[in-house]
Amino acid sequence: MTSFSADRSYAQTLDAADQLTHFRDRFVRPDWEDLIYLNGNSLGPLPIRTQARIAELIDQDWGVGLVRSWDKWLHQPRVAGDMLAEQLLGAASGQVIVCDSVTVNLYKLAWAALDFRPGRDVIVTDDDNFPTDRYVLAGVAAQRGCELRLIHTDMDEGISEESLVAALDDRVALVELSHVAYRSGALADMGQLTDLIHRAGALALWDLCHSVGAVPVELDGSGADLAIGCTYKYVNAGPGAPALLYVRDELQHQLRQPIWGWFGQRDQFEMGPRYDPAPGISAFLTGTPDIMGAVAVEEGARLLGEAGMQQLREKSVALTEYVIALADEWLAPLGFTVASPRRAARRGGHVTLRHDDARQLVQALLRTNIVTDYRTPDRVRISPAPLYTSFTHVWDGLDRLREIAASKSYADIPPEQPLVS
Amino acid sequence: MTSFSADRSYAQTLDAADQLTHFRDRFVRPDWEDLIYLNGNSLGPLPIRTQARIAELIDQDWGVGLVRSWDKWLHQPRVAGDMLAEQLLGAASGQVIVCDSVTVNLYKLAWAALDFRPGRDVIVTDDDNFPTDRYVLAGVAAQRGCELRLIHTDMDEGISEESLVAALDDRVALVELSHVAYRSGALADMGQLTDLIHRAGALALWDLCHSVGAVPVELDGSGADLAIGCTYKYVNAGPGAPALLYVRDELQHQLRQPIWGWFGQRDQFEMGPRYDPAPGISAFLTGTPDIMGAVAVEEGARLLGEAGMQQLREKSVALTEYVIALADEWLAPLGFTVASPRRAARRGGHVTLRHDDARQLVQALLRTNIVTDYRTPDRVRISPAPLYTSFTHVWDGLDRLREIAASKSYADIPPEQPLVS
Repeated sequence: MTSFSADRSYAQTLDAADQLTHFRDRFVRPDWEDLIYLNGNSLGPLPIRTQARIAELIDQDWGVGLVRSWDKWLHQPRVAGDMLAEQLLGAASGQVIVCDSVTVNLYKLAWAALDFRPGRDVIVTDDDNFPTDRYVLAGVAAQRGCELRLIHTDMDEGISEESLVAALDDRVALVELSHVAYRSGALADMGQLTDLIHRAGALALWDLCHSVGAVPVELDGSGADLAIGCTYKYVNAGPGAPALLYVRDELQHQLRQPIWGWFGQRDQFEMGPRYDPAPGISAFLTGTPDIMGAVAVEEGARLLGEAGMQQLREKSVALTEYVIALADEWLAPLGFTVASPRRAARRGGHVTLRHDDARQLVQALLRTNIVTDYRTPDRVRISPAPLYTSFTHVWDGLDRLREIAASKSYADIPPEQPLVS
Repeated sequence: MTSFSADRSYAQTLDAADQLTHFRDRFVRPDWEDLIYLNGNSLGPLPIRTQARIAELIDQDWGVGLVRSWDKWLHQPRVAGDMLAEQLLGAASGQVIVCDSVTVNLYKLAWAALDFRPGRDVIVTDDDNFPTDRYVLAGVAAQRGCELRLIHTDMDEGISEESLVAALDDRVALVELSHVAYRSGALADMGQLTDLIHRAGALALWDLCHSVGAVPVELDGSGADLAIGCTYKYVNAGPGAPALLYVRDELQHQLRQPIWGWFGQRDQFEMGPRYDPAPGISAFLTGTPDIMGAVAVEEGARLLGEAGMQQLREKSVALTEYVIALADEWLAPLGFTVASPRRAARRGGHVTLRHDDARQLVQALLRTNIVTDYRTPDRVRISPAPLYTSFTHVWDGLDRLREIAASKSYADIPPEQPLVS
């Protein structure tokens, strides 16, 4: 490969060598050419096969099969979970299920973990974790009379081993951390941190929202106890698609989640007098699961698996390296700084840039059909997803950002415009 | 109207006078003629307009609009909730939201209700309530160190005023009851029972799963405090569509639900350090809501509203009266008994028949494309939904049931065949 150049032709050279470029055609995007989509870490695009599966589900399974299709649908949360486990999560089958939201799944698992470690009354997370993680855990801590201990974390570099160790003691029941930080993209060493957590006698719960489908995940290999994650980002399963929930095999019969619903019940349709949790991962279901969403999760995971997480990761690293190189070359003189780890091994699938006018810059890019996103307090988040983003997209997107920043053409946008996504 | 006759021509006469018959064409059912669907109380059919809205959502809003569509989607749980409130629930806007499952919503509201009545440590429900209701409340009671007090209920006639009163005292924080009983179809007097509950100083939480879209509901008028309900039965919103949640206006700022997620947060995208519940009904959201499902709920409620709940109820009563009349005429001599209230005013949208071989009878009907459902221990449940079921369907379905029962043509079906739906 030729060495870095800030010319557009270099992006074209990288694209020409890209083995994954044809996966772009697996998505429904009639106007890809008019759009530069660098926001797959918020909502991934629609795979063609997913569109067909959902249409089949609606038109045939629901429209014609009606209630008779539940024979098949009942298995869908497990089918989707096993597909995620095998293709993306490094987990043996029977440990992942697709249901509810990340928020609800975190609540269930945090509650169960506290029961599993009686006498321990501290939950640990980091103070820059995604809001729903911090909020849910604060709620569980309040309800259980526990302490929520927040690790102070570097907003750009992510959690350090030292700060985690300093937060651990024999009062800690559970540590919940994000594998990839939502703001900076900092990638935690799941195996190493899980070891530290286990040495303190606590359970390790990993939030995979920004890592599933973005970086290889090895749940079984890392010794992780529990995990949750969302499917509408890199898994491309659509707005509000149900979340994943992982419980390590050995723990499944020892943990009891608090929301006792009929889908978690053994012999569900016997409708017996008392709640008796189903064996295995199904005990972590609650109410009737979203079937359309679970079908989309299955297809999204299948597509990523077809490309291969190792190949995707290699391209993802090349893409984020390229974002950083162009940012250094073009954007640093315009007041931007790279607010993500510079070491690829410590970085997930997105890169974040700091700029005083980040909020307006993101809006100005959007006006020209370049989709990135703003994150508080002053960050532009850029996610070049390897399944459908080209190096030329990155070049064109950052070139536009450079123009906008240099010309201050965003000056007409109110700095406090309400945020929606 | 001519007086009842067991001839098929009588069904045809009733159909000819039916003002709602054209609503049947609003559903996607290429083979209605080959199918007698008496199971809308389990999964409703697919409305044509819902099929189109979901396709539009997927192809355009997701496929083309991508993350930019969140500007619109953010409102969808409220939009769907207000549509339900206005068309079906007798509730002013801003009190209903569509999210999560019935199970999760019941958990949230039961927990919040206990906090609202400190010093009270009893939850009351009935011993024949739908399993998820009993299980969720048993879980909440166990977690809160409360008592779950079960009212003994007549399986066929539903809850009595006397049995409710006997269960009430000044320890009761919350009473949760089903408006229409899932097994018998017994319809509770929401206003009267809510009054009794209020006199005891407790909150009244109504499960509307088998009543929303089946009978007129007057949440505001009855004084109900809280409600939950499912949308994939009579609201026809598809498998696993999200549930409804109602909190009476005055209570919204006084109740705090336990699952503190980012969609329940004020200024969600500011991602602040502490959970600060949004004003109004939005505080009862948790994680990212299922958007496809919420769109289907909106359309389902709109379609029912177009027919009008009073008109639907009139036809529904006529249909269930007809089921009972034919059952008395044909089926009683074959070992069936009516296991639903005979007074229309105390009966919801379905009729249940008792028979020793109910499980096999339902399977045998299914082999001939007549869909009913089995409920433990020995019940055939028949739901003639007024939006798409004709009197001739009822005649044909019960005629077949009569044939099957008389000939014992179900004898080859194993009595213990696993149940799925």
